[in-house]
Amino acid sequence: MIILGIDPGLRNMGWGVISVDGPRLRHIANGIIHSDQGDLAQRLVVLYRGLRAVIAEHAPTAAAVEQTFVNKDAVGTLKLGQARGIALLAPAEAGLPIGEYAPNAVKKTVVGVGHAAKEQVQHMVRFQLPGVVLAGPDAADALAVAICHAHHIQGRSIRIKVAS
Amino acid sequence: MIILGIDPGLRNMGWGVISVDGPRLRHIANGIIHSDQGDLAQRLVVLYRGLRAVIAEHAPTAAAVEQTFVNKDAVGTLKLGQARGIALLAPAEAGLPIGEYAPNAVKKTVVGVGHAAKEQVQHMVRFQLPGVVLAGPDAADALAVAICHAHHIQGRSIRIKVAS
Repeated sequence: MIILGIDPGLRNMGWGVISVDGPRLRHIANGIIHSDQGDLAQRLVVLYRGLRAVIAEHAPTAAAVEQTFVNKDAVGTLKLGQARGIALLAPAEAGLPIGEYAPNAVKKTVVGVGHAAKEQVQHMVRFQLPGVVLAGPDAADALAVAICHAHHIQGRSIRIKVAS
Repeated sequence: MIILGIDPGLRNMGWGVISVDGPRLRHIANGIIHSDQGDLAQRLVVLYRGLRAVIAEHAPTAAAVEQTFVNKDAVGTLKLGQARGIALLAPAEAGLPIGEYAPNAVKKTVVGVGHAAKEQVQHMVRFQLPGVVLAGPDAADALAVAICHAHHIQGRSIRIKVAS
């Protein structure tokens, strides 16, 4: 099974692809689709085409999307909603089943606690996927949600070891 | 020029197509894409494919999208954002220039005042597009935003007559 994880953002859409073979996880690729030029519609097109290119290149069999944090800022929430719409549309258009996970569920699965710092998430992603070179924090978050999905769909132990 | 107007909504995505020939407006088609079945990603796919089908059938040369009202309800705002992302993506993917208009700008153009009731908007849409059969309030709003766009891009008088 190949899982595409997505961390939705309008300016930076993080993505990460892993393969799952029994309890073994392997890093395939990760990156960030940047979209900060032009009007909103054009930015959404960049995100959509970027995700479709990732799907075409890596042929994932499932997708996992981090649930957007709903904050008090309505304008920010609306922007995130638009980016998240694209993050869900692209894999669904490609026929992939999609899992959605709240940020603290991802952290709990990957780090062991729900309120881990970003640095801890990156550390554990590197630990779980030896040799990975992270394109940035958003790509690390995307790999984390992919790892979280692998853990949940298997329903058995991809053991989360805490390196310290 | 053929204009596609869109009133974004997750459950009901209104759309309307008009042609503009000098000061003359003509109704071509209107409808509502319903999406209330299945998970969110599938609903977004239904909206996206529905809009693409409308674009393929009627070949608009421009699009106009009503700006989403940002309210106090963060969950509602997020849903609207997702639907609006699709409403912008579909015409942008098809290469159409897109105008965006706030609801009260649409009402001011079509009815003459910014705080018109939905019934007034429907009345004026029927008046401007003789013979139109409206698929529902969301389709009327979509035709209204298309009329608003026609008015603004021409920069000359498509005269808004007030029928009493």
